[in-house]
Amino acid sequence: MKIVETVAAMKQLRKQVAEPVGFVPTMGYLHQGHIALVDRARTENATVVVSIFVNPTQFGPKEDFKKYPRDPQRDLTMLEKAGTDIVFMPAPEEMYPTAYDTWVDLDNITQRLEGASRPGHFRGVATVCNKLFNIVQPQRAYFGEKDAQQLRVIQKMVSDLNMNLAVVPFPTMRETDGLAMSSRNTYLNPEQRQAAVVLYRALTLAQKLFAEGERDANKLRSRMTDLINKEPLARIEYISVADSVTLDELDRVETKAVVSMSVIVGSTRLIDNVVLG
Amino acid sequence: MKIVETVAAMKQLRKQVAEPVGFVPTMGYLHQGHIALVDRARTENATVVVSIFVNPTQFGPKEDFKKYPRDPQRDLTMLEKAGTDIVFMPAPEEMYPTAYDTWVDLDNITQRLEGASRPGHFRGVATVCNKLFNIVQPQRAYFGEKDAQQLRVIQKMVSDLNMNLAVVPFPTMRETDGLAMSSRNTYLNPEQRQAAVVLYRALTLAQKLFAEGERDANKLRSRMTDLINKEPLARIEYISVADSVTLDELDRVETKAVVSMSVIVGSTRLIDNVVLG
Repeated sequence: MKIVETVAAMKQLRKQVAEPVGFVPTMGYLHQGHIALVDRARTENATVVVSIFVNPTQFGPKEDFKKYPRDPQRDLTMLEKAGTDIVFMPAPEEMYPTAYDTWVDLDNITQRLEGASRPGHFRGVATVCNKLFNIVQPQRAYFGEKDAQQLRVIQKMVSDLNMNLAVVPFPTMRETDGLAMSSRNTYLNPEQRQAAVVLYRALTLAQKLFAEGERDANKLRSRMTDLINKEPLARIEYISVADSVTLDELDRVETKAVVSMSVIVGSTRLIDNVVLG
Repeated sequence: MKIVETVAAMKQLRKQVAEPVGFVPTMGYLHQGHIALVDRARTENATVVVSIFVNPTQFGPKEDFKKYPRDPQRDLTMLEKAGTDIVFMPAPEEMYPTAYDTWVDLDNITQRLEGASRPGHFRGVATVCNKLFNIVQPQRAYFGEKDAQQLRVIQKMVSDLNMNLAVVPFPTMRETDGLAMSSRNTYLNPEQRQAAVVLYRALTLAQKLFAEGERDANKLRSRMTDLINKEPLARIEYISVADSVTLDELDRVETKAVVSMSVIVGSTRLIDNVVLG
């Protein structure tokens, strides 16, 4: 496994590797969700590249950039075991040198949900992914479905800008009680960790109601709200029932819909989603 | 010479051509300045691709998108004669399909000069060039130095987003009296056409004063202003003496500087520039 820290070295190495190249962009502090993406990339590509980069531009000024968990040694051990060929782990100054000035902005799809809660977040996500795609030049890039809006923002950017890769979504990996795997779960104390399962319980309720024939999006939202509000450690930021491509909020679930939520447990912001239909 | 109208067909064809690929993006209504770019691309690349696309997103709502001159048959004849291999000429809906949502924004470098006069102009330019670079995947893209700020915006975008091509600048082509070649010169009536040479005369004056030792940027600006103001058909929009990379306005010309201007002659907006030092 090769470890590369500069853009120039990554581009040089890229010229020499076997194609197709599969790419898994991460912020490190890896869990089984990330490794499942690497495993999938391993089965579909001649070369697997993983990036580890805690991207400063997707964190707001009051967010957890500085305290975001980091453990590169453990990450590298996990990636080597999973059969990764190349790890690209640049410093922030390598990605954003002095007088950096260029941003990728999506208008409509970033105005809601995570974009509304975290202004500038998707500008940072789209920009860093655009840069990483140009540096790594993968045939395929793998993204977890846990970040539902991020996945759709990246798909839209790749499509709109005519970029030359396929975006491959991969199902959310969950703990045994249903909590979606996330590097931020490490922020939870044992009591909060137990309370955090309420997100998955609310999503499961929506799936059950939908299976029973419920199509009224407001009813789905209010039943999930009621369930979460019974958990004293949980505070809802948003609950959404939206079109699965545009993320426009729905009145009725006629075709495919994504049910997503942001819930603050203790002081940790957690997100999760399921697709209906 | 192959003519391609869809993104999918261009990408398909791109896989089959000899590399390196040289690319000349244009808005059509070609003149000798464009052909000089094609000639240069021809000498340096195995395959030459030219795009003809009057990009709607770089025109303001009150600008000349609809009346921008077009003559594709004449353009194709000129390009065939110059040895072009592929002409990519998409319709606007092909480049900006329904629900198009992604934009490339540069902050500092686009706030001044053309960017200040034409809000949104460089968002359109950067976005369409980003798309065209992804579609054509050239090793080199050729840009005339006449659009001084556009050249620097594209160079900055390519560098910031780690895109995989070289941006090659090419000297401005001029008519025998010095007027910079431009598709918009066709808007000028004979009297205006004669008056339009005042831009080049002002730039030549700046070069002469600089050669004589003048380093005070305000003196250069005021001498050029005086000269242009003597031409009754000309109205200055801006005159700039700026750092040749950042386009920050200068007090003194210590290193390389770009002297640029926008002057309205009759009702036609003309730009031109020279580099000092």
